[in-house]
Amino acid sequence: MQVMTTICSHSFDDYLRMVESFHGHVAPGMVLGGFMVALALRHLPAGELLDALCETPKCLPDAIQLLTPCTVGNGWLRVVNLGRFAMTLYEKRSGEGVRVSVDPSRMEPWPEIRDWFLKLVPKEAQDRRLLLEQIREAGSGLCGVRPVRLLADFLTVRRRGSLAICPECRESYPADDGVTCLGCQGGAPYRTDGPPRQ
Amino acid sequence: MQVMTTICSHSFDDYLRMVESFHGHVAPGMVLGGFMVALALRHLPAGELLDALCETPKCLPDAIQLLTPCTVGNGWLRVVNLGRFAMTLYEKRSGEGVRVSVDPSRMEPWPEIRDWFLKLVPKEAQDRRLLLEQIREAGSGLCGVRPVRLLADFLTVRRRGSLAICPECRESYPADDGVTCLGCQGGAPYRTDGPPRQ
Repeated sequence: MQVMTTICSHSFDDYLRMVESFHGHVAPGMVLGGFMVALALRHLPAGELLDALCETPKCLPDAIQLLTPCTVGNGWLRVVNLGRFAMTLYEKRSGEGVRVSVDPSRMEPWPEIRDWFLKLVPKEAQDRRLLLEQIREAGSGLCGVRPVRLLADFLTVRRRGSLAICPECRESYPADDGVTCLGCQGGAPYRTDGPPRQ
Repeated sequence: MQVMTTICSHSFDDYLRMVESFHGHVAPGMVLGGFMVALALRHLPAGELLDALCETPKCLPDAIQLLTPCTVGNGWLRVVNLGRFAMTLYEKRSGEGVRVSVDPSRMEPWPEIRDWFLKLVPKEAQDRRLLLEQIREAGSGLCGVRPVRLLADFLTVRRRGSLAICPECRESYPADDGVTCLGCQGGAPYRTDGPPRQ
């Protein structure tokens, strides 16, 4: 029997197409992530201005970026890598929201999900088709939901002060970073490899 | 005179629509960022498998996510906040690529861009329409391009080891993080605010 499924008003298949287009491939974490975002939204009043916190850099940030107005570049999504596959949507000013996490204790009926999520079998030994089917059936039933309130410190928007021109690279940078920019202080993870091309 | 402009095969107006849809509004940084991504791609061989490094969390990551296959969630885009409006696209394995940065010394003919980019006048005093027009005309001419090579350390994919179940939150986390997860070690920027809802 085919399970009728929607994710945030998208049909399941439409969501898979969106995932493929944005994320590059239909990753199981993106599918589970879609259910998580949808679940969080169901527990929040419609029309609120929401920010997002994601506790892993893997997959889940892209589900949030696809299904909410929150992106990394507009600053409404922040990724703090706590190593947990969990996310919070919260009202921008009050910091009140809901956190959705994956609960391993609910995976017993879904061995393929358990083996993938808890990394119990190597990727090559996983049955991808069965895994996606189980995620589709289990959906948000794998997840816990809990009201949370973001700490005031986290909500405070740090307004950066004035900019300076770095005497080494001649680019602009926040003057508060020091007499040169953080890149020229040794933070850049690359070395230049030839003369400028433009 | 209307300037004919394209950004990575999109017409300028189409790109603005993509920006509005994904980023939420037509931010000047997204428009400049589009020119930067397009410029980087012009300096790289077509068909290479590229990763991206972005040196600011503001706007530029979204231009990269819109115009390349690199996203935060698929791991092909990494944001390292060095406070510079600059980005690098590089071949995944060799780490060879090009870095595109904004060169303040080229802003003299574009006062509206200079005042915005260097934060010389408050947002309310900026002429948004003129600013976007100047960015459209100046385009990638504001930018420097330089070959770079990413450091081996940065390229090394850290494969995370096995997962454990945290004895406090009962969620899975990388066992290497300690006897409890980083969230339960005090890293979570929120407190729970009521009983579970699911």
